[in-house]
Amino acid sequence: MTRSCTLAIDAMGGDLGPKATVAGAAMCLKEHAHLKFLIFGREKDIMPFLSAHPELKKVSEIIHTDSVVASSDKPSQALRTGRSSSMWMAIEAVAEGRADAIISSGNTGALMAMAKLCLRSLPEIRRPAIASVFPTKKGETIMLDLGANTVCDSDNLVQFALLGSIFARLVKNIPRPTVGLLNVGTEEMKGNDQVRVAGEILRDMNFPGLYYGYIEGTDIPAGTTDVVVTDGFTGNVALKVAEGTSELIGHFVKDAFRSSLMAFLGGLFAWGAMKKLKQRVDPRFYNGGMFLGLNGICVKSHGSSDAYGFSRALKVAADLVDNDYNMKVAAEIKAQQERETLSASPVGGLD
Amino acid sequence: MTRSCTLAIDAMGGDLGPKATVAGAAMCLKEHAHLKFLIFGREKDIMPFLSAHPELKKVSEIIHTDSVVASSDKPSQALRTGRSSSMWMAIEAVAEGRADAIISSGNTGALMAMAKLCLRSLPEIRRPAIASVFPTKKGETIMLDLGANTVCDSDNLVQFALLGSIFARLVKNIPRPTVGLLNVGTEEMKGNDQVRVAGEILRDMNFPGLYYGYIEGTDIPAGTTDVVVTDGFTGNVALKVAEGTSELIGHFVKDAFRSSLMAFLGGLFAWGAMKKLKQRVDPRFYNGGMFLGLNGICVKSHGSSDAYGFSRALKVAADLVDNDYNMKVAAEIKAQQERETLSASPVGGLD
Repeated sequence: MTRSCTLAIDAMGGDLGPKATVAGAAMCLKEHAHLKFLIFGREKDIMPFLSAHPELKKVSEIIHTDSVVASSDKPSQALRTGRSSSMWMAIEAVAEGRADAIISSGNTGALMAMAKLCLRSLPEIRRPAIASVFPTKKGETIMLDLGANTVCDSDNLVQFALLGSIFARLVKNIPRPTVGLLNVGTEEMKGNDQVRVAGEILRDMNFPGLYYGYIEGTDIPAGTTDVVVTDGFTGNVALKVAEGTSELIGHFVKDAFRSSLMAFLGGLFAWGAMKKLKQRVDPRFYNGGMFLGLNGICVKSHGSSDAYGFSRALKVAADLVDNDYNMKVAAEIKAQQERETLSASPVGGLD
Repeated sequence: MTRSCTLAIDAMGGDLGPKATVAGAAMCLKEHAHLKFLIFGREKDIMPFLSAHPELKKVSEIIHTDSVVASSDKPSQALRTGRSSSMWMAIEAVAEGRADAIISSGNTGALMAMAKLCLRSLPEIRRPAIASVFPTKKGETIMLDLGANTVCDSDNLVQFALLGSIFARLVKNIPRPTVGLLNVGTEEMKGNDQVRVAGEILRDMNFPGLYYGYIEGTDIPAGTTDVVVTDGFTGNVALKVAEGTSELIGHFVKDAFRSSLMAFLGGLFAWGAMKKLKQRVDPRFYNGGMFLGLNGICVKSHGSSDAYGFSRALKVAADLVDNDYNMKVAAEIKAQQERETLSASPVGGLD
């Protein structure tokens, strides 16, 4: 039997607020009966949606607050004035052990700043990263960082490789995940200093994954590696270019079906197949940016998420909890550090 | 009447060599009768393909050399040992005024290194960039840098904005092109130092385009701006993610048509429309990376180009020549510098 898992929801975040967050929780509960919810936000806004889902109501508790972090707030501003907000209170519930994970569709910068301050980073992890899973030709790939750190050094990149490969092993059940370092070419001299140094460290390191080497932009959708490691600037652009290109091709396909009577008839015949295809690249299915490297589980849902999208982000959080990601990642990193220290010491390194 | 235009072809570059380069020249000549060609490479390898195209043979001259830059050569190595190579000799023909542009499918790093050394940068331009045109929802967008400079400062980015906007005006006939600076968000505090400083300079600057502000990865395929400016690392990844995603969705569409009998029939009906769609996103159509900012026109064709792809790269070069891009860009940049100096001087800046 799966033990219970309590998710703290910032109900007020995102464009749709409780309409998406509460309905999303109801959807997720249908498939994951072990879930319980702490719902943070304005009680009178939340209650109508909660009352519409009696099963959800039974396993939920509303914690009322009127204060909300605005999507336009700077992270520093949110930190100064947001201690009574639904976002902060939901994070605090995880820090204090009342919940196992926090999920929000709100302001990404504020969420990361608050999560770092309130949950703190895992010991040894210098910078948490945002990670997400993508559809590829071969299945799925996890990429990080997607925007938490616009400037990264080689140590940050190496730690992202650890965080990502442990995720792939624990949650995606890949025994020895391959890790690619995103670069502008596969030859050794390519790239910038951070990437080159990170590549050297990963090559020589004994880590819970298989270092594949440099990969290029085409390798992400091709699914060349299980894990893609990059800095937050490049990762954010890569993610959004992939989303935009997918939408552009979808637009071209629609145009094509409208271009002639024959094509239109073809579209009617292929309707069911095209609908399935749309589901296959539905960004809502892949919703849920995981903040990896924190001392607690925090998942960012897209600001424009509807109920289905939000339910997927909840599932991402529940998967991390159910697989004990945070405890295991801390243990792995500690073991990693010990191995490194051992191999660097004059005695332990002799063999 | 268009005056004649002589293209110097490195016939030996790319995976297919003269099979693609010479046949590509023949294809391009059919639509651009004013072209002449200097073809550099092994005469015995080139001649059979040239003889198959009598019209091309009439306007072409072979300049024989046995030496070829290998795709695995480091740029420094190519510079040291490659002075008798087809690549270097073709570039030299432009430097010496015997040709108007050089086109190669060979080693990108070697081509850029040789072009910089032999042609030199335009006065005032500190770093040439690689630029290319992409299909978008609204038509086409030019993006640079695509990989010449993996590390860029704010001045480099500002110069890329100039080079790109002048291209959009001269070659794409957009009177006042919009220029977007690629970033991880549109708010002012987003991004890294280089991007923020470049944004401030462009905002305050009087330049031959309209500074739109920050754009995100999704804005590239959406066609939000006519010009996209970024560093060579991010640009290279963005370009390849777009290519890869486009291929992935194509793969999914094919899968969908194969998924049931109904879908298969739909595919038959929509055959013509799907073929046109494929042409619309054909990377060969958009082949041709322009090295902008050099004292001479140099175009890089994809290493795997076939004859059609290579003919498109030749057309890109011919368009730059026909629109006098290099002379005009030098004049614009000089005028720009004078305006800047004037507005910065205590007297000229008084008004």
